[in-house]
Amino acid sequence: MFTVDVKRRTVLRAAAAGGVGAGLAATGVAAPAGADRRTGTDGPARRPRIAVLLFDGVTPIDAIGPYEVLCRVPGASMLTVGKRTGPVRSDNGVLTLGVDHTLRDVRWADVLLVPGGNVRGVQADPAMIGWIQQLHRRTTWTVSVCTGALVLGTAGLLRGLRATTYWGVQTQLAQFGATFVPHRFVESGRIITAAGMSAGIDMALHLAAKLADDRIAQALQLTVQYDPQPPFDTGSPDKAGPELQRLALELLNPGGR
Amino acid sequence: MFTVDVKRRTVLRAAAAGGVGAGLAATGVAAPAGADRRTGTDGPARRPRIAVLLFDGVTPIDAIGPYEVLCRVPGASMLTVGKRTGPVRSDNGVLTLGVDHTLRDVRWADVLLVPGGNVRGVQADPAMIGWIQQLHRRTTWTVSVCTGALVLGTAGLLRGLRATTYWGVQTQLAQFGATFVPHRFVESGRIITAAGMSAGIDMALHLAAKLADDRIAQALQLTVQYDPQPPFDTGSPDKAGPELQRLALELLNPGGR
Repeated sequence: MFTVDVKRRTVLRAAAAGGVGAGLAATGVAAPAGADRRTGTDGPARRPRIAVLLFDGVTPIDAIGPYEVLCRVPGASMLTVGKRTGPVRSDNGVLTLGVDHTLRDVRWADVLLVPGGNVRGVQADPAMIGWIQQLHRRTTWTVSVCTGALVLGTAGLLRGLRATTYWGVQTQLAQFGATFVPHRFVESGRIITAAGMSAGIDMALHLAAKLADDRIAQALQLTVQYDPQPPFDTGSPDKAGPELQRLALELLNPGGR
Repeated sequence: MFTVDVKRRTVLRAAAAGGVGAGLAATGVAAPAGADRRTGTDGPARRPRIAVLLFDGVTPIDAIGPYEVLCRVPGASMLTVGKRTGPVRSDNGVLTLGVDHTLRDVRWADVLLVPGGNVRGVQADPAMIGWIQQLHRRTTWTVSVCTGALVLGTAGLLRGLRATTYWGVQTQLAQFGATFVPHRFVESGRIITAAGMSAGIDMALHLAAKLADDRIAQALQLTVQYDPQPPFDTGSPDKAGPELQRLALELLNPGGR
């Protein structure tokens, strides 16, 4: 768990105001693992607690992209949550990510992040869907990346909303009463859905500005050195065209998309 | 481990040639975990074995960004390698990534990927540095992301080369006899170094084109839907300016950079 103590937050506020000096080395940065942010002196909006749902079949970058941005929002604490603690396997089986907290242990969050991947198991699991519905009642922001939007849809959270998802499953949003919008991310009330995989980074910078302010979000963009210069320009279905679309889906190893 | 069987590769070759049909559902996609690519019928250049070094202190996106692209290169197998199997903690302690193979178990790879993060422990570990030097003798490509370049430098692999690294530590490259170049990624012989964190995605698309071809790399860009549209334009130190640079380093929670 990552938290930032009050003294450090004072430094960061000074930094945001343009007057930062050195000073960081002199301040305590990380609170002990397991620290409860509710014991802090700040309200929820100032020390956001961010819950990231992990599950077997997750696409790691859907979680990791936003994580790298959001875990560095001043005061943020971030929790990985799943059916049980321990490792979950990625969509293609290569990687494992660790879950530190069970659904039962995490009953509220300011931000709920639902990544995508092979989400059929999550969609079919009443305990996970129920947990999402319960957390969503109290979140400030409920966000998804990639096919995580299909999970939010299954939980009934997208009815009547504009939303986005992975380009390869965009037609599936309609079954949840949502209107697909081909944007990088879509904010509808307190729900933000991001497009596929890497789009989570763009969405997280937008969300960081909401949780903190524009200057913090701009600094976080530099922290993760997000100055994209891909060697090709085929990252959206329109730019890629039908032949590359077919090849891209072949390469995806579709299990749950 | 992710591998693609020969039948599927035939489909992919057809796809690359523009003639793909459905067919994917009928083919076996994933080989059993632990399958040895050396038993395949293709040579190394066609079925690249990619070793990703993981360690306590790793910055997850440095590994995960390239992973999402490279694990989908046709025929690629990908292995997570570390001092011991089991979880390693990320630089800020929030996340764990799983290691499936020990250094001793992995004696060769076509591609060695060294991510960054708090790399001091790796730099100070003769077993890890020795393993990198040994693997590098037989790799086709040895690549780093972010402060992973400092690890390659410690291993003596950057002497006399142009290279890049995380913007916040760029002056440290000189001590390894390397010349810092402020590019998104830098190819010097068979070593490719990427700039900070998210730059690994750009580098991986470049590498995918080398391992397969441009069309596969272009399709992979769409697979990971990498059509970046950050809400700000402050992702490089030049674009951000000195004040945001200071704030960005504050937010980084510097442990090893």
